[in-house]
Amino acid sequence: MRWLTIALLLAATPALAATPEERLAAAGYELPAPTKPVATYVTYVETGNLLFLSGHGECGETLKKGKVGGNLTIEDGAKSAERTGLCILATMKAALGDLSRVKRFVRVDGLVNSTPDFTEHPKVINGFSNLMKLAFGDDGLAARAAYGAGSLPFDFPVEIIVVVEIKPR
Amino acid sequence: MRWLTIALLLAATPALAATPEERLAAAGYELPAPTKPVATYVTYVETGNLLFLSGHGECGETLKKGKVGGNLTIEDGAKSAERTGLCILATMKAALGDLSRVKRFVRVDGLVNSTPDFTEHPKVINGFSNLMKLAFGDDGLAARAAYGAGSLPFDFPVEIIVVVEIKPR
Amino acid sequence: MRWLTIALLLAATPALAATPEERLAAAGYELPAPTKPVATYVTYVETGNLLFLSGHGECGETLKKGKVGGNLTIEDGAKSAERTGLCILATMKAALGDLSRVKRFVRVDGLVNSTPDFTEHPKVINGFSNLMKLAFGDDGLAARAAYGAGSLPFDFPVEIIVVVEIKPR
Repeated sequence: MRWLTIALLLAATPALAATPEERLAAAGYELPAPTKPVATYVTYVETGNLLFLSGHGECGETLKKGKVGGNLTIEDGAKSAERTGLCILATMKAALGDLSRVKRFVRVDGLVNSTPDFTEHPKVINGFSNLMKLAFGDDGLAARAAYGAGSLPFDFPVEIIVVVEIKPR
Repeated sequence: MRWLTIALLLAATPALAATPEERLAAAGYELPAPTKPVATYVTYVETGNLLFLSGHGECGETLKKGKVGGNLTIEDGAKSAERTGLCILATMKAALGDLSRVKRFVRVDGLVNSTPDFTEHPKVINGFSNLMKLAFGDDGLAARAAYGAGSLPFDFPVEIIVVVEIKPR
Repeated sequence: MRWLTIALLLAATPALAATPEERLAAAGYELPAPTKPVATYVTYVETGNLLFLSGHGECGETLKKGKVGGNLTIEDGAKSAERTGLCILATMKAALGDLSRVKRFVRVDGLVNSTPDFTEHPKVINGFSNLMKLAFGDDGLAARAAYGAGSLPFDFPVEIIVVVEIKPR
């Protein structure tokens, strides 16, 4: 039976070794073109083993603009957070070459454009965090803060700011 | 008189060497059980010499929920900031084993759930910072930013995000 | 013609080698006295190769207080962001001795005290970023996030939080 064990191990290896890019593609996600700065800044800065990203909203057209708890539901917000995650992954890939260079997520600030009485920010930002868990496993979990912004650029439903630790080149 | 000098020095030493835990206990503070993540994240990430914590509110029952400048006074907010500080210390202790491994506070974002016309955020967040000064002395002082959130998860009066430098193991 | 080449190179060198302080002065900017903490915190913390600054508003008298999109225009906000930048540079100079010790800007959080329907935060925070580009060139560009605060201390039009990488001493 040794050949069977070996065959099974070989069959399992690609899954174990799947890259974040492969895991995203297998789940049907596609990365957009990386966003360009809309003002006087850059979309990422590498310093030491840390990569700091600029605040991101959805890339391209924003599906639904506005305020969660107002014209948008929690589900609308979570969808925007997921699309913002894809936009962030596109920037990371442009910065790092491939996403396997991410060692782990460090800090995530998830800002929700919400009405003053909104209280379900964690559910909204999970749209982002669940995507990162799918792509990176437990390394996709960050020290996260979710909170309500008074207003956001372009009336984005969410804006997300990320710091990750990267593997040395 | 040399024996007296030595005796006085010995008597003084325990106070000088008191741990943050001892200083907190001497002032009547008790750490709560560390909080568990309510969504897809972790409560802390260690990278290099830095420990990043997730956004924290009060552990357990929130004393008074709502907006500072609205249904809550500055004192209510400062009390919530202090209780949030105890919750953060519980997470730090879980992360580090003992609080003496904190070398110094680096950055604190103190978010106040406030009405649009509120302007006294620093007084609210001092409820947190005064606790850290008591526990860590000048090492408890951070590069701090206090500001108003449009809304906060669970209608917390404050949410606080902390980065500290830690001593190597 | 070799002497001419050398003369031209020598003439060009001061411009190439101009310090941030010289570039600011040449453009007519003057640094204010560094701000003092208004509560229990410090205005900067150095850790490793990073310098973390506290949240800053304008130093001294705030030109115009209030909300961008309300009683203040985008231009008012951008002017406040620029003045906040000068205040931040004063703190950096106090921390580092001279501004040439800044290796590059890493992260900037630009908070705009704005009405709930405001969407032009990047234009406001450019008042800050354009100043940093003037002083530091491309090294003054950060991974930036611009967003709306629900309210700000002292009714500042903007509050800005900065992390820079510094050159080793």
